[in-house]
Amino acid sequence: MPMEQTQPLPAGSAPDLHHIVIVGGGFGGLEAVHRLAGAPVSITLVDRRNHHLFQPLLYQVATASLATSEIAWPIRQLLRDRSEITTLFATVTGVDADGRRVLLEDGSSLPYDTLILATGARHAYFGNDEWEPFAPGLKTLEDATTLRRRILVAFERAERETDPQRRAALMTFVIIGAGPTGVELAGTIAELARDTLPPDFRNIDTHKARVVLIEAGPRVLAGFADDLSAYAQRSLESLGVEVVLGQPVTACTADGVVYGNTQLDAKTLIWAAGVRASPAAEWLGAPADRAGRLMVNPDLTAPGHPEIFAIGDTVTIAAPDGHPVPGIAPAAKQEGRYVADIIKARLRGEPVTAPFRYAHAGSLAQIGKRLAVIDFGRIKLRGTLAWWIWGIAHIYFLIGLRNRLSVAISWLWIHARNQRSSRLITQGSSKVIR
Amino acid sequence: MPMEQTQPLPAGSAPDLHHIVIVGGGFGGLEAVHRLAGAPVSITLVDRRNHHLFQPLLYQVATASLATSEIAWPIRQLLRDRSEITTLFATVTGVDADGRRVLLEDGSSLPYDTLILATGARHAYFGNDEWEPFAPGLKTLEDATTLRRRILVAFERAERETDPQRRAALMTFVIIGAGPTGVELAGTIAELARDTLPPDFRNIDTHKARVVLIEAGPRVLAGFADDLSAYAQRSLESLGVEVVLGQPVTACTADGVVYGNTQLDAKTLIWAAGVRASPAAEWLGAPADRAGRLMVNPDLTAPGHPEIFAIGDTVTIAAPDGHPVPGIAPAAKQEGRYVADIIKARLRGEPVTAPFRYAHAGSLAQIGKRLAVIDFGRIKLRGTLAWWIWGIAHIYFLIGLRNRLSVAISWLWIHARNQRSSRLITQGSSKVIR
Repeated sequence: MPMEQTQPLPAGSAPDLHHIVIVGGGFGGLEAVHRLAGAPVSITLVDRRNHHLFQPLLYQVATASLATSEIAWPIRQLLRDRSEITTLFATVTGVDADGRRVLLEDGSSLPYDTLILATGARHAYFGNDEWEPFAPGLKTLEDATTLRRRILVAFERAERETDPQRRAALMTFVIIGAGPTGVELAGTIAELARDTLPPDFRNIDTHKARVVLIEAGPRVLAGFADDLSAYAQRSLESLGVEVVLGQPVTACTADGVVYGNTQLDAKTLIWAAGVRASPAAEWLGAPADRAGRLMVNPDLTAPGHPEIFAIGDTVTIAAPDGHPVPGIAPAAKQEGRYVADIIKARLRGEPVTAPFRYAHAGSLAQIGKRLAVIDFGRIKLRGTLAWWIWGIAHIYFLIGLRNRLSVAISWLWIHARNQRSSRLITQGSSKVIR
Repeated sequence: MPMEQTQPLPAGSAPDLHHIVIVGGGFGGLEAVHRLAGAPVSITLVDRRNHHLFQPLLYQVATASLATSEIAWPIRQLLRDRSEITTLFATVTGVDADGRRVLLEDGSSLPYDTLILATGARHAYFGNDEWEPFAPGLKTLEDATTLRRRILVAFERAERETDPQRRAALMTFVIIGAGPTGVELAGTIAELARDTLPPDFRNIDTHKARVVLIEAGPRVLAGFADDLSAYAQRSLESLGVEVVLGQPVTACTADGVVYGNTQLDAKTLIWAAGVRASPAAEWLGAPADRAGRLMVNPDLTAPGHPEIFAIGDTVTIAAPDGHPVPGIAPAAKQEGRYVADIIKARLRGEPVTAPFRYAHAGSLAQIGKRLAVIDFGRIKLRGTLAWWIWGIAHIYFLIGLRNRLSVAISWLWIHARNQRSSRLITQGSSKVIR
């Protein structure tokens, strides 16, 4: 490790150890860290957030089902027992690939021998960024508490609204995009309105809330088998969700959404239709696809830089079936493990030639509190059994006994009493409902 | 109830029922609601927040020990089974006492036959409002998450700071005011630094964090017996807290705090030194004390308005011992019960002449995770036994089995593993640490 660094030396790491910088403490970055345990390296993990986020359950924070602290962990605490790792709470602004340095927003830089970029993605509006204030997306804890506030405030405003048309617009919730996140949001908002909220209001009947799921493609859950898509759609409709297919949204405003010839009045829009990669490709000046995803080599290295790996939602690479590897947690984890194994082999002086091969374990989506669909490829599950597998799998993948207990209790209360524990409107008093 | 109201009629309430408006869903307001169960009245509860807050544990949110949803409940949900109650999420801007109307911020108004003002207090700076940005106080959930962010970010900045003097200022935490909140904050921050954080950092030794508790008066916990104050001070000092007594703070700035001839460099200041009542007295044009507290009649009515009651932190009244009734939850609850009983007696046509008599059950304060002091008057407890009573009492007073379970689990984890579940820096990325 060069000595002219501007950051303090990681404590406990000898300066002659191979130094790995990992940018991003999501699923991919953390999995690489775990797989590197015991290797003769020092590691600096940089993240602009102080916490790892369990994104697959973020929609449950947005719908008041879980608390923020149930799906987020301080990265420092997760890595506290690994003395070779330094955690840095900082924002990366670029990479000096020739000088082998990561550039930080405070003007300092961080040298590396090997770099792993695991910087994820944000939601994206395909050139319509002006839609964001009206149709916010869901990628961070703040996104989730903002959505939660908007959903709960819409019901509060409806309770006080006397004009029928304005009240109807306040009680219309539109989710744009019917991938797993869109489907899960639509199902949970419908249940919130049907099961949790009715006894609480006096002037409105929350059963009458409209939840509209709009998808540009021909079916919901396009990543699943056809019959599971059809089942998911029927299940959503039985929860009261209106499913609109084959309709790209052409406008999002403060008053609602436009698709085809339809203007739908709605005060709450949620964007679940697409993501854009973090600027890893820009940092490297390397080729990217339309969504900004870095086009990596088959061994997940950046073009021309065998010492730079990129993994997770910030890259695009083909799966063995020819389709792109999906942007889901298991894919990012597999890539993290693969990269860690390459680095360890290189340090042992062994050549690695096997390209990364993605193995798809399955696709899961929850539809409301008692149903789910699971596509394992040959085996397809749906209904209550699928829901149990979905629930157990998600609790299993949470980190730590405490959060597993806590999430299990939260779900128990939703099932047994229809109580959602986190119906808090924060960051804004009643003035927001004017 | 007059028919010219501008708010929709509460569903389920006949227009000829006696209509009570309660402003504020804190301990006093909710207790009045509970005590009015079964009375021939309709009730509108107005709050500018959608949640009731268990303020006695707010310091545990600020110190990452509890999640926001563990100490807050949607008011609507608490009152869902009482069909005679309408909950209104709105901000009150005044009272038209002659016209018997509560004025709301959207220009509408709410008629009442009887009004209960239970609007609480905010922290106050005794004419030094310019100190607030540097020394925030602790009254709302947002105050708590803001303090949590400041405390956690200070350690993060210290980890990256190479200048020893600036690093020392980042690792100095000053709490101004040694009442129960100040003592509890100081003890918990000291434990956070001593027990929870040390293994997580590489460049700083969080044991070296300074926690300084500054009090203008001659002792900590002035509301407790002398020997308990002395015990609390010794206990704090054994946790590493520096206790400074008899020193009014004369300046709070971005660089630290000034008291006497001392300029103490500190990047994190917390204000726990005083409160100011909500503007209930201003709304009524009625006399108030120096802290803005409405001076109520012995039956808690406002001067000249037997149909207006005021309770809790927004009023001042003498206890039987001649001292003012303290601003604590049990006092607000007793006042809420007393007022509800008067209203019920009036509706039965019975005269009520007995003035409100405050009965002090005891004072409790936690000092770190294993010690507490309890002053029951004749019986005084301290140490571990007092901590168990403190803990059980607080879990008992939480609302609902779910939150009791959840808080018990959170505390178990703090005790057994020194893990604090809510170490989340939200509402600001790493850019806040520049």
